[in-house]
Amino acid sequence: MEILFPTTLTYATDLVREKLIEPFGRPVNKTKRKVTVVGCGQVGMAVVMSILAQNISNEVCIIDANEKLVNGESKDVQQGSLYLRDAVIIGNTDYKASEDSAVCIITAGERQKKGQTRLDLLKTNVKIITQIVPPLVKYSPETILIIVSNPCDILAHVAWKTSQLPLERVFASGTHLDTARFRYFIAKRLGVSASSVQGYVIGEHGDSSVPVWSAVSVGGIRFRDLSKCAGAEGDTDQWHEVHNQVVKAAYEVIAGKGYTNWAIGLTVASLVSMILDNKNEVATVSTLAREREGIENDVFLSLPVVIGANGVTSFIKLQLSGLEQELLCKSAETLNKAMQSLKEKK
Amino acid sequence: MEILFPTTLTYATDLVREKLIEPFGRPVNKTKRKVTVVGCGQVGMAVVMSILAQNISNEVCIIDANEKLVNGESKDVQQGSLYLRDAVIIGNTDYKASEDSAVCIITAGERQKKGQTRLDLLKTNVKIITQIVPPLVKYSPETILIIVSNPCDILAHVAWKTSQLPLERVFASGTHLDTARFRYFIAKRLGVSASSVQGYVIGEHGDSSVPVWSAVSVGGIRFRDLSKCAGAEGDTDQWHEVHNQVVKAAYEVIAGKGYTNWAIGLTVASLVSMILDNKNEVATVSTLAREREGIENDVFLSLPVVIGANGVTSFIKLQLSGLEQELLCKSAETLNKAMQSLKEKK
Amino acid sequence: MEILFPTTLTYATDLVREKLIEPFGRPVNKTKRKVTVVGCGQVGMAVVMSILAQNISNEVCIIDANEKLVNGESKDVQQGSLYLRDAVIIGNTDYKASEDSAVCIITAGERQKKGQTRLDLLKTNVKIITQIVPPLVKYSPETILIIVSNPCDILAHVAWKTSQLPLERVFASGTHLDTARFRYFIAKRLGVSASSVQGYVIGEHGDSSVPVWSAVSVGGIRFRDLSKCAGAEGDTDQWHEVHNQVVKAAYEVIAGKGYTNWAIGLTVASLVSMILDNKNEVATVSTLAREREGIENDVFLSLPVVIGANGVTSFIKLQLSGLEQELLCKSAETLNKAMQSLKEKK
Amino acid sequence: MEILFPTTLTYATDLVREKLIEPFGRPVNKTKRKVTVVGCGQVGMAVVMSILAQNISNEVCIIDANEKLVNGESKDVQQGSLYLRDAVIIGNTDYKASEDSAVCIITAGERQKKGQTRLDLLKTNVKIITQIVPPLVKYSPETILIIVSNPCDILAHVAWKTSQLPLERVFASGTHLDTARFRYFIAKRLGVSASSVQGYVIGEHGDSSVPVWSAVSVGGIRFRDLSKCAGAEGDTDQWHEVHNQVVKAAYEVIAGKGYTNWAIGLTVASLVSMILDNKNEVATVSTLAREREGIENDVFLSLPVVIGANGVTSFIKLQLSGLEQELLCKSAETLNKAMQSLKEKK
Repeated sequence: MEILFPTTLTYATDLVREKLIEPFGRPVNKTKRKVTVVGCGQVGMAVVMSILAQNISNEVCIIDANEKLVNGESKDVQQGSLYLRDAVIIGNTDYKASEDSAVCIITAGERQKKGQTRLDLLKTNVKIITQIVPPLVKYSPETILIIVSNPCDILAHVAWKTSQLPLERVFASGTHLDTARFRYFIAKRLGVSASSVQGYVIGEHGDSSVPVWSAVSVGGIRFRDLSKCAGAEGDTDQWHEVHNQVVKAAYEVIAGKGYTNWAIGLTVASLVSMILDNKNEVATVSTLAREREGIENDVFLSLPVVIGANGVTSFIKLQLSGLEQELLCKSAETLNKAMQSLKEKK
Repeated sequence: MEILFPTTLTYATDLVREKLIEPFGRPVNKTKRKVTVVGCGQVGMAVVMSILAQNISNEVCIIDANEKLVNGESKDVQQGSLYLRDAVIIGNTDYKASEDSAVCIITAGERQKKGQTRLDLLKTNVKIITQIVPPLVKYSPETILIIVSNPCDILAHVAWKTSQLPLERVFASGTHLDTARFRYFIAKRLGVSASSVQGYVIGEHGDSSVPVWSAVSVGGIRFRDLSKCAGAEGDTDQWHEVHNQVVKAAYEVIAGKGYTNWAIGLTVASLVSMILDNKNEVATVSTLAREREGIENDVFLSLPVVIGANGVTSFIKLQLSGLEQELLCKSAETLNKAMQSLKEKK
Repeated sequence: MEILFPTTLTYATDLVREKLIEPFGRPVNKTKRKVTVVGCGQVGMAVVMSILAQNISNEVCIIDANEKLVNGESKDVQQGSLYLRDAVIIGNTDYKASEDSAVCIITAGERQKKGQTRLDLLKTNVKIITQIVPPLVKYSPETILIIVSNPCDILAHVAWKTSQLPLERVFASGTHLDTARFRYFIAKRLGVSASSVQGYVIGEHGDSSVPVWSAVSVGGIRFRDLSKCAGAEGDTDQWHEVHNQVVKAAYEVIAGKGYTNWAIGLTVASLVSMILDNKNEVATVSTLAREREGIENDVFLSLPVVIGANGVTSFIKLQLSGLEQELLCKSAETLNKAMQSLKEKK
Repeated sequence: MEILFPTTLTYATDLVREKLIEPFGRPVNKTKRKVTVVGCGQVGMAVVMSILAQNISNEVCIIDANEKLVNGESKDVQQGSLYLRDAVIIGNTDYKASEDSAVCIITAGERQKKGQTRLDLLKTNVKIITQIVPPLVKYSPETILIIVSNPCDILAHVAWKTSQLPLERVFASGTHLDTARFRYFIAKRLGVSASSVQGYVIGEHGDSSVPVWSAVSVGGIRFRDLSKCAGAEGDTDQWHEVHNQVVKAAYEVIAGKGYTNWAIGLTVASLVSMILDNKNEVATVSTLAREREGIENDVFLSLPVVIGANGVTSFIKLQLSGLEQELLCKSAETLNKAMQSLKEKK
């Protein structure tokens, strides 16, 4: 295995080095905030750049089976490291390079091919995940694992089982992105910053996601106190349009550029920051939901949790409306069916 | 023209908005640090994300003739703006959206097609630049113009003439990237940070670039004081390999991933930061070099200059070795020929 | 007037400079984000350092009548500017140095002396403010004015009248700090981050401030939906203790170190960031409250507003409980009395 | 011992907490980048704020024997933590609170009292250091120790012996500040950024410090190549004035405000960043210099070294001029005498 960025290269002779530098203390090749990103497609690289450019970590390892690609991407970033506070970026095909990562993020996976059923795609990606997780966990047994590959809820479930890690240390980015879009679209309509809008989307990261309109507020003022059916049936102001925008958001971006990467990259980087800085922030990520909020199925889906240095440290208990409750259970059922289909056809 | 991110959208009725928010002061749609990036290919978007994620500017406009693409890219970033300190990102095909930009960066241009001569490509890109510059300058007469499209030296020359802006306000990113790579490769060999290595590459941004080995130092110790021919003929330690690495760097990345974008994106963002924060940092960018350092040709090429709020505020006068001087003049001659060929065949 | 940090000093002869640097473009001495802080006591300097170290602005002017002190403080910061991204810091006794500031912050004022009545102190500080505002506005007619000196509500009122600036461009930091403390103390009790706690304190910045318990929520869950009297009479969980902590917070810090500065410095810096980056965030700052939320008095006090590039751009309309409404009116009355006493005894 | 900021406070009953939050994963109270600052005087607190506001670490422990003061200072910062990305700040008199710190910084020590000899002061501070170091190292055996208290060279020597830590993990901030001032004053005279000026000051942090004019350069151009005696005797351009400014800098600031803190705070924070991010940057810090650069005395003084995750990882070998060499040995002799006087009078 060749680590692509060793701290020092040795040349047979090197007068300048010899006359200039005298090694002294035991050099150390790593920080305690190493982050590994598996998969250097557009999403993986957007995660990498969001982490480095925002100074969330100064040490990133990129793993990909495609040696040419991972070489190209890691070298490209390395060559800009002068403008990244001398961050260390390594790229490799061998998981050994990921050793001692505090956080590992899986973005690898296939996109749907023509003629391929959704189930066939799912099976392909499940297989990929089960191959990625064991070597990652082997080299970083203390790591926290974030699944970004889609369908992320199911893949996180599989990753958790495969990893044998404690439940709090394996989750999917889930609706953390849908929540960002939800708050952004509400903010845009009101002319305030997204950070001043409270609210979230829970359930499946996908079409069956559930906007929690009953909890939406700006400046502490709850929408439902201003308009009883804001976001629901009969809302003449059509706030429910906002959730449609959230669901369509990815499709619109894909229609324009063929894929999405920036928003998901920034979203995942924010989760990494909550972990590395032990922020204990509330975020909606996908974790085992059985027996929570009336869900009976043994599924991973997104709920608001507290994220800290040890991953998921607490659950926030919701106060859902009847309709929200119902939609969440439907979302759980959708995910459960996908999980079952996976088992049946094995 | 539709600006893709208006501060407020108006709906026929909006009970929540009406009951929640009372407009007060005259709202303002812009900061004083707006940056426009023309061209939302991989390079353009890497520039955009490097600027936003590093908080260099909080307001970016993306212009591209491809409406679908610019819509897709700008929406993707907008949807992550919650994690970009509520930055404002707009995308458009109409230059009016770029109004009042403090800095405009041109990344648009074609890549070489099969069977196309280098000269034909050059002519195509010159034509593109002459179409982009006038509307940019019309809407932002006080802007500083950075040319990133290749061949950047020639295109910056053309852009300056087309723009009728003062010389100090039009330059190409030039060898600012080659310098970053040069310092990085030296740093890697010595096991120190790139920021602790001093040195630069001047001349053409391309194969005829000139590494100024006579000025390379680490911690104030000049290489030439340790090894008389460091980087030159007869250097048994083969430091000249480092410049080969610099020249090959882009090719290697392209061989791996098909294009380069991260390093150039970070590099350009660093120039934007020098301008917006009036840093007066020394950097190697491409500007009119005639009658400087022995150059007689009327060409743009990279030399170390001081970059501040008004663009190029001073030139650093070099102390080149005889060989470096000679190579620089050759580089100037190469560029001059390209400029001439452009004129002759018109 | 001597500007303490000119960009260039001229020496009679300077071989190095002459041989090294050739001036080129018209140099510019300023960014578009200049911030002036009046008063370089502990609060003023905490504001300065919070702005510079967080890269909110790269150009800060410090004004103080005490020439020795302002020299000492500005030189101290200048000497560390290498580690502040080459930020420009100037210190002066002459307001001309503050020219073209985007934001001006007043922290000057006396502390209560032994035997001095509160009213006498108020009169002294009112006099100071009326002397500071005119020259500030003269040199920066487009500025936004933030009053931090205490009692900030009354002084902001006076500053606004004196300045003749539009109302949206003059406000006091007010309960923006009390809100930060309120959210912090709630967060501490729950083990989540303060940024995940929503809620605010309104009214006077001082003992009569009003915690809006009816709007407190974490992760979108309102406290009042979990415990009907959270924060109010009869709350067996004693959440009202949190507001006592807020009111006592400053006293406790003063008991320990003699004054408060870090929290207020960070708080004010966050307001500056909302303005310079046009964030349109909701914050509780002190502005003219007459005819808002049932207030009849002609007073400045804190209410949640939207802060953007033009200062206060909107008001958030509250849904106060009866008790909160009553307390707010009492707070307004307290402030009104102070304003009246000021007039009567003139 | 009471840790002033526990993650969770327990109340006898708490309906809101119980209904809102369900603890899940094992909570973790710390990041891997904890920094402890001993001494919360003006210097200590400037270090703390420089680290937190620049996001160098998100977890800081302040230790001071003065319980009232450390309570006041730590509470003041805590109350602003909403604007410090929810950073965790603890203050205590008990060293147990510093457990597991990656870096410990000692700023404690007395200032000279009237009638007290310099030697008496030195002895007092040596005693303080020998009391601080053992408990620090006991609770953080893997820590790196930075001495900031003055005279820092001698105190670092004592701290190293007391600590029994490897040499690379104990050093004083030394002339890292003098170097920042040196580069700043040169930059100011030339109108370029301090970061574009190369050069350093070595030797004692104090009056006998040595400016290495032979290594000063801007943009790779060495001053000595432009003016043979730049900085030395016979320099008609009086560049040596710059070193006088460096030596007088602290005195001038003290004359103005009574002490220095901002520049030293930023300087120390930059060292912490080099360690926590394993930057391998070249910096001048104070370490054991015997048998280096012709020094025969067993003293700590500042030389350019490489700083990474393990502290001092390499020495840069200098190319001093005869005069510089001589001045450095004199500086070593000055320090040696102080060390000897310490021993003799014990």
